[in-house]
Amino acid sequence: MAIKVHGVPVSTCTAGVLLCLHEKGLHYELLPVDLAAGAHKQDPYLSLNPFGQIPAVEDGEVSLFESRAINRYLARKHKDIGTDLLRANSLPESALVETWMEVEAHQFHGPATAILHEIIVNPMYGIASNEQTIETEMEKLGKVLDVYEERLSKYKYLAGENYTLADLQHIPNLVYFMKTTKAEAITCRPHVGLAKQVIG
Amino acid sequence: MAIKVHGVPVSTCTAGVLLCLHEKGLHYELLPVDLAAGAHKQDPYLSLNPFGQIPAVEDGEVSLFESRAINRYLARKHKDIGTDLLRANSLPESALVETWMEVEAHQFHGPATAILHEIIVNPMYGIASNEQTIETEMEKLGKVLDVYEERLSKYKYLAGENYTLADLQHIPNLVYFMKTTKAEAITCRPHVGLAKQVIG
Repeated sequence: MAIKVHGVPVSTCTAGVLLCLHEKGLHYELLPVDLAAGAHKQDPYLSLNPFGQIPAVEDGEVSLFESRAINRYLARKHKDIGTDLLRANSLPESALVETWMEVEAHQFHGPATAILHEIIVNPMYGIASNEQTIETEMEKLGKVLDVYEERLSKYKYLAGENYTLADLQHIPNLVYFMKTTKAEAITCRPHVGLAKQVIG
Repeated sequence: MAIKVHGVPVSTCTAGVLLCLHEKGLHYELLPVDLAAGAHKQDPYLSLNPFGQIPAVEDGEVSLFESRAINRYLARKHKDIGTDLLRANSLPESALVETWMEVEAHQFHGPATAILHEIIVNPMYGIASNEQTIETEMEKLGKVLDVYEERLSKYKYLAGENYTLADLQHIPNLVYFMKTTKAEAITCRPHVGLAKQVIG
């Protein structure tokens, strides 16, 4: 039975889960959630995620939400297929994956999504981008990217010599970010800029 | 060799790690970081955590930061001592632990810390609490606690019938929260209010 993914691919959180499914070569069924109609804030969707956010995943009897939790589950369940995204066989390596996954969640994600919200989402709704917010968040993001540059000058990937969920979790936001006029923040840092090869 | 914890117990993130160490009955050495002198923003601390935040942990050759990553590591390394905080032997159960850990990180933590910042931290520095911020964040927190109340009316703990890291991660913020005039938000919800028994 294919894994059911409730969400929309344009959402970075849904895209992160789809990316993990593709990385593992797993079959899945994408069930679109009609955000415009507010389907995510109503039953039956609320029975999948009581916080009314996408994505949610059903894998047989297992029903999950929160994209990073879903990806940890997928990576754990299918660790022997393709890339071992959690480095589960080594305690020190898996600890570094966890550390840099938390960095993505608590250092990178906030400023990255705030910037994309201003530059991409707001104009879609006819709302002007707030330049002050963009500047403040770009400064925060710059400091995070400086740490990444230092890290990636010593290691091939964030958690060490192997591609893991720590890297994968960054990709959906980076794909959008690279389409903005702020992309130079990535490309001007030579080691961070190598991400371009991954996201195409 | 005892685990080295760099941090201060008054910090909720450091307290979360200490709580996990106590839960597992592990020996550790607490190495205070002089936040007032800005020691966390300078070398040598930055070599432990380049983002300049506490806590950081050294366990032999393993050097980690980000409290939730540290606790996952401790729980995984010592899963056979005391409570199995990640339910690592069951894939569906561990997936629920991950989901509710992410809920703590992305739904509960934000409003809870914003409220504590206004009510406890700001007055310590002679800054008046912003009542509007408190009200806005209390509304957000209330919605999260409503979901918890529903969940805890069906299950003994957030991830099911067992105490896990998903519950533990909430405790440091809850301990402070229960000392504020807003504690009723916890006690007025009968199942959430049972947390009082855990935090004393």
